[in-house]
Amino acid sequence: MEEPDFRKMKITIVGLGLIGGSYALALRKLSPKKIWAVDIDKDTLETAKRKGIIDEGFSLGTLPLKDSDLVIVCLYPELAISFIKENLEHFKKDAIITDVVGNKKKVIEEIKLFLRKDLDFVGGHPLAGKECSGFAHASADIFLGANYLLTPVSGNKRESLQLLKKMIRGLGCKEAFCLDPEEHDKIIAFTSQLPHVLAAALINSSGLKNIDNLIGGSFRDATRVARMNVDLWTELLMENRENILTEVEVFVDNLAKIQLALQKEDCVTLRAILEQANKEKEAFK
Amino acid sequence: MEEPDFRKMKITIVGLGLIGGSYALALRKLSPKKIWAVDIDKDTLETAKRKGIIDEGFSLGTLPLKDSDLVIVCLYPELAISFIKENLEHFKKDAIITDVVGNKKKVIEEIKLFLRKDLDFVGGHPLAGKECSGFAHASADIFLGANYLLTPVSGNKRESLQLLKKMIRGLGCKEAFCLDPEEHDKIIAFTSQLPHVLAAALINSSGLKNIDNLIGGSFRDATRVARMNVDLWTELLMENRENILTEVEVFVDNLAKIQLALQKEDCVTLRAILEQANKEKEAFK
Repeated sequence: MEEPDFRKMKITIVGLGLIGGSYALALRKLSPKKIWAVDIDKDTLETAKRKGIIDEGFSLGTLPLKDSDLVIVCLYPELAISFIKENLEHFKKDAIITDVVGNKKKVIEEIKLFLRKDLDFVGGHPLAGKECSGFAHASADIFLGANYLLTPVSGNKRESLQLLKKMIRGLGCKEAFCLDPEEHDKIIAFTSQLPHVLAAALINSSGLKNIDNLIGGSFRDATRVARMNVDLWTELLMENRENILTEVEVFVDNLAKIQLALQKEDCVTLRAILEQANKEKEAFK
Repeated sequence: MEEPDFRKMKITIVGLGLIGGSYALALRKLSPKKIWAVDIDKDTLETAKRKGIIDEGFSLGTLPLKDSDLVIVCLYPELAISFIKENLEHFKKDAIITDVVGNKKKVIEEIKLFLRKDLDFVGGHPLAGKECSGFAHASADIFLGANYLLTPVSGNKRESLQLLKKMIRGLGCKEAFCLDPEEHDKIIAFTSQLPHVLAAALINSSGLKNIDNLIGGSFRDATRVARMNVDLWTELLMENRENILTEVEVFVDNLAKIQLALQKEDCVTLRAILEQANKEKEAFK
């Protein structure tokens, strides 16, 4: 199998927001022949071109897609699906398409229903982000040391997977992990969406307290992601609600154990719970 | 009122762990005449002296206390109270004593019951720490940019407060805030102890999931403090349990609102909750 050569490739990024913009910046390290972008915001496209972050910007997919070997769709879940569907005829023959949507099962199942046989769609999810959105905050650094999840399914080509893994290494990510889309959504409900839900619930509990200057690192960290992209996260949480509700229940059970120990003034149990937390946390070192 | 001059002062730190050790390191910036330490661990005292972090170490309070102008007690809550009680006769006349205990009401009320009239105890709580304990992890940097809470009560001398505020600035803290001990315990239940409780409950929910490499920044941040000093936190949480239980209830109510929105597939409500979280988080910028 030939090693993929990015220098011969033309890449189109669809959606030049925080993530799309960060791809454009980081992909330069791989020296692709062209980096193109599709976005509805002409100012962003102009800025990105003037700064040399992209080679050309387009308002529609028509032109760049017909010549792109790799297309990275950096749109919200529903938009990502509809963009691929509506532009289906424009994709270059045998093009590889990937996305960055935070839930994988639905996007993969829906795209499979209409995708052209020659095209290969491999679901992706970089565990990278920031507490802000938009092209202005894009940075190649968001990928550095981040894990990157790929959710290949039967039918995906080995070559596509090989190419994406090479791209992921080139972006500076820590590692690429492959997992089943359904498994992905279950895990991400716990490792990403639950922490976002808890951060929102915690910050919303601050009520009228005047505590701006009375917080320490634990509160700051626990609420870092409370500032999230509201439209995106409403869509992500609602779509994966069954997995998230299951994880919230498990969490509430564990919280109730601490509540009970405090209510009963049971130091032995409380100590055992904190001891367990210490051990579990060690496992994530 | 004369400006306090640390170069004329002898300071004793009681308990040379993470926090006590960090005081010893950071206090050098103020060039006090002497920095002494009391600890039960002779190896730690020897190491600290050899490295020039302290000028002398003592296993008992007897000797250093009788010549110390300022005593910083860096022990767990119950030990802090009993140390001061048991060493009461040894303190220098008019000495200033402060502590670093995470709950303030109990320690202040108990010490008040037996404190010598000439001594001045001012409760303190630096919002600084690390996910590890012990002298080996001590660092002057933990104070940099941290908020520092003082809980003076009627009877405390203006001069003592002035001296502690100067010390706090000298440590590199962001600012010193004064508040009532009872108010302190209510606020800290929300801003520090609740985040610790949530981190423990979250990490304990990971169960048998094999997710070491599938976590992103949100999970890492939400569980950072799950690795806590178990003995210390059992004592802190149990002592302040009434305030914490109140805050847990408020949090669970807010979490239940998100659960309900997800169960009812109510995007409008979910979006409003996330919008509120965004706004609340902005307030802590």
